[in-house]
Amino acid sequence: MVLFRRLLGEVLRSRRVRQGRTLRQVSADARVSLGYISEIERGQKEASSELLAALCAALDAPLSEILSEVSDAVALEEARVAMQLEATLESTSIPAPTEGDGGRRGDVVVSAA
Amino acid sequence: MVLFRRLLGEVLRSRRVRQGRTLRQVSADARVSLGYISEIERGQKEASSELLAALCAALDAPLSEILSEVSDAVALEEARVAMQLEATLESTSIPAPTEGDGGRRGDVVVSAA
Repeated sequence: MVLFRRLLGEVLRSRRVRQGRTLRQVSADARVSLGYISEIERGQKEASSELLAALCAALDAPLSEILSEVSDAVALEEARVAMQLEATLESTSIPAPTEGDGGRRGDVVVSAA
Repeated sequence: MVLFRRLLGEVLRSRRVRQGRTLRQVSADARVSLGYISEIERGQKEASSELLAALCAALDAPLSEILSEVSDAVALEEARVAMQLEATLESTSIPAPTEGDGGRRGDVVVSAA
């Protein structure tokens, strides 16, 4: 399952690191405890919307930009999961549908979520 | 303050409505209580990442697509907030900087968050 909080954490962390700032500095600017931000960056805690807004302000990044980056990261992970699933299905060698059976045999419903 | 949960709720709601589905149907598919989904759609509760994944699967929408839509909605709202702020600053008639003072007078630090 592709989890929002994990990729949000990665995006927030990489922003902070690119700015050469420490957790302590962002914690002071956002007025959020250092431990909490650290957990969010590691994808271990969900950030409330208010906290996310405070973090974005402290990182001088519009929320829309952060979300767009998270969306891109999620899309990459969704593609990776779909490829893995395909590889797994191929290795289980489900017989291909033959003509005349309406192509129904071998239909597999999969979910990448 | 532009809140993620409010715009996420709007995006999820408009998806469901476009599909002509009721809260009850999505609730059954996502295995999430109807009341909880309703609160999320109205931006009153934060959705955990697991719940968000379940909702996306129930709506047959990749998480990346939902986040991209939310990002667009957030960007619109950020622009609206910035315009309102500008209008407010203009109406308070802060004296424009004159030549020779280095353009420093009248500088205002604003945050759209």
